[in-house]
Amino acid sequence: MSNKPSLPRGMRDFGPEKMAKRNFIFNTIKSVFSKYGFMQIETPAMENLSVLTGKYGDEGDQLLYKVLNSGDFLSKSSIDDFNSGSNKLTQKISNKGLKYDLTVPFARFVVMNRNDVTLPFKRFQIQPVWRADKPQKGRYREFYQCDADVVGTESLLCETEIILMINEVFDRLGITEFTIKMNSRKVLKGIVEAIGAGENETDFLVAIDKLDKIGLDKVKEELSSRGLDANMISMAEDFLSIKGTNSEVIEALSNLLSSSEIGMEGISELNKIQEFLEPFGLRNTHIEIDPTLARGLSYYTGAIFEVKTNNVKMGSVSGGGRYDDLTGVFGMPDISGVGFSFGVDRIYDVMDELDLFPEEVTTTTNVLIAHFDEESRQYGLSALGKIRNEGISCEIYPDIAKIKKQFNYADKKGIPYVIVIGSDEINSGLLKLKDLTTGEETKGDIESLIQKMLD
Amino acid sequence: MSNKPSLPRGMRDFGPEKMAKRNFIFNTIKSVFSKYGFMQIETPAMENLSVLTGKYGDEGDQLLYKVLNSGDFLSKSSIDDFNSGSNKLTQKISNKGLKYDLTVPFARFVVMNRNDVTLPFKRFQIQPVWRADKPQKGRYREFYQCDADVVGTESLLCETEIILMINEVFDRLGITEFTIKMNSRKVLKGIVEAIGAGENETDFLVAIDKLDKIGLDKVKEELSSRGLDANMISMAEDFLSIKGTNSEVIEALSNLLSSSEIGMEGISELNKIQEFLEPFGLRNTHIEIDPTLARGLSYYTGAIFEVKTNNVKMGSVSGGGRYDDLTGVFGMPDISGVGFSFGVDRIYDVMDELDLFPEEVTTTTNVLIAHFDEESRQYGLSALGKIRNEGISCEIYPDIAKIKKQFNYADKKGIPYVIVIGSDEINSGLLKLKDLTTGEETKGDIESLIQKMLD
Repeated sequence: MSNKPSLPRGMRDFGPEKMAKRNFIFNTIKSVFSKYGFMQIETPAMENLSVLTGKYGDEGDQLLYKVLNSGDFLSKSSIDDFNSGSNKLTQKISNKGLKYDLTVPFARFVVMNRNDVTLPFKRFQIQPVWRADKPQKGRYREFYQCDADVVGTESLLCETEIILMINEVFDRLGITEFTIKMNSRKVLKGIVEAIGAGENETDFLVAIDKLDKIGLDKVKEELSSRGLDANMISMAEDFLSIKGTNSEVIEALSNLLSSSEIGMEGISELNKIQEFLEPFGLRNTHIEIDPTLARGLSYYTGAIFEVKTNNVKMGSVSGGGRYDDLTGVFGMPDISGVGFSFGVDRIYDVMDELDLFPEEVTTTTNVLIAHFDEESRQYGLSALGKIRNEGISCEIYPDIAKIKKQFNYADKKGIPYVIVIGSDEINSGLLKLKDLTTGEETKGDIESLIQKMLD
Repeated sequence: MSNKPSLPRGMRDFGPEKMAKRNFIFNTIKSVFSKYGFMQIETPAMENLSVLTGKYGDEGDQLLYKVLNSGDFLSKSSIDDFNSGSNKLTQKISNKGLKYDLTVPFARFVVMNRNDVTLPFKRFQIQPVWRADKPQKGRYREFYQCDADVVGTESLLCETEIILMINEVFDRLGITEFTIKMNSRKVLKGIVEAIGAGENETDFLVAIDKLDKIGLDKVKEELSSRGLDANMISMAEDFLSIKGTNSEVIEALSNLLSSSEIGMEGISELNKIQEFLEPFGLRNTHIEIDPTLARGLSYYTGAIFEVKTNNVKMGSVSGGGRYDDLTGVFGMPDISGVGFSFGVDRIYDVMDELDLFPEEVTTTTNVLIAHFDEESRQYGLSALGKIRNEGISCEIYPDIAKIKKQFNYADKKGIPYVIVIGSDEINSGLLKLKDLTTGEETKGDIESLIQKMLD
């Protein structure tokens, strides 16, 4: 083969079966988001680099896909630019990049549409993002994000709504064994205050974020290497070792943080979120208050969440939290909100491993009309029309072909029923419906066969 | 404002209302595609440039968005590359591009998955594509394509299925005034043969493709300037002037093309497609056989289609045709098929102009729970849970705010019902449901109000 095509590294095709399963997840999430009053928006794949750059740290800037300016892109650059290297030249030959997440484009959207958006604004967005990351198992260079945010309100009810949506989505997907870990950045700030490590807040967060991965001893080593003294580390250990039920955890935290105003505020907020859950019978259900949850170094300022499945080993399948400044970087301060994201690729893997996809998800066609010759194919067309009129997905085999080939097509495509039409059927008006799963055959006129399929 | 963000030229955000309307179109199309046995696939936004380049002509190559290689992209290029200009340098610093259409990625997909794909393969694909075109009214640099193709069969039933799907989609969207123009490349080949312009086939197609835009006289001028002699042009005029009902057109064509084998084959195919439509009662319905329809210069070899709306001035809103070689360029010959595409942006504009979007399309939330204080908000949560349990989309106003502000929120978001909860309601258990459209108020317990909304 002269020109064997290939896919770019870290990117994927989704064939019919995977696509159908992914759509099941997307449609479930969409339907829950809508039921809770969230409205969908979409932003372009490309953003001006001025919008993207500097929002994800230096490492993030390196991972942005940059798009070459169209036309004679070199016309504005000189040999000096070339000689100054890739970074310098990029600024001259590329002013657009592919979006890296959905949050920064959303912030841009809010700022540009500030006069049309009614606050509180509940939006969701399901679109691919791109990162020039090193591809590895479960990490792709193109992947969908699936975000919901409420901006323009500080109400903790929004945090509760997020927990309700997580519950409903996982329930509908059939994922029963999951834990919603919850903490507050205010609690973490309180801990840092209480142990006297205020100057090392960032170091503290970075270190404890790794607790799950590297364990307490290594975290203590890291805290030490980051400049916390033995006393601070010993006090930190008191916090990091808190275990028990949610009320036990809250109680222990309250004792340790009693002198920290911000810490106590965080605790009170976690309590309030739980209180709002009570009328739904969900206080403490699936919820684990975890004072060691830190959620990286992003822009969170209040409650933070992370969802893990209990019976499949996997990173978090959903996460989010409250922030108090979404759009300040674009000149519109004081827009606070709370958002979270479903990790669709991971949810897919979990469902696949637990065999949770309902069988009908991948059934595209319900019945195939098979035939022996031109005459029976033409006859089959009126059956085709009648079946489709009842809303049943149906196809007729397009070619004149051996009946075995037609059944083979149905089999490979997972079509559960076949109607066979030959001269007998044309003469009698009685058609045969074969159930490919059970082998059962039913004879009748088209109306009765339709009824059988609808039952 | 220090850093006012903007959108790249030719690209669009879709806010909640536009998005809801677009989703109505997408969901309608998806649902019809599925009913006809088409399966959805997705391919990545980026393809290797080796896959894309050379597939869309020189002009197309210029319109491809090229993505800078990640990391130190200059490491493989020399000062000579820089001095040779943009085109030369591009090859060194960019090996990926954004997809330009859905057909080439589909062809790549078929070739790469040849062992898993069951032929005939019916696929649909709804994704954005990117073209670095000059933006103008109705032309964007990012836009969705919405394609369905059947490959691996020469059956003319597939052409008929396309006409059936077009009918069903427009019917469901409420677009009643449309015309499906149909022709065959074989008829066009026959015409070229019959007028003795075989060597100028491409010139002939390019010229008559403009008939709609520039009129017969200009087309004749262009044919002349492209080297057709007066005799040829006079004969061409006989074809281009054919008018009448479909059977009159077919009869006139048959008389003029009687000596052209390929021309007669084309006519017979157009007849067959119509014959297949008869059991559905759709022979000639919306269909206009138009021997001047040429559909640009692409890869079509058989029947071609184009759909126009009759009461809105607009380019074609859907089009497609049969091809006999989808994948030859990737080393897999003889894959024939037929495909077509819905122009979602134009369909949107038509529906907007004719006011065809059903009102409920943009209703995201059915009912808002409004309240006077913390106590009534907390009380409202159990109503919220009960309403959502019935599948009704519902929100509670998250903040403690003036009741007027809460009604204003409902009004701006187009929420049709508001339930107001205050101390009276808590004490009596009887809530008030206000219909914001009619102003009507209903009092009752939550169950009866739910029933009222469901009725």
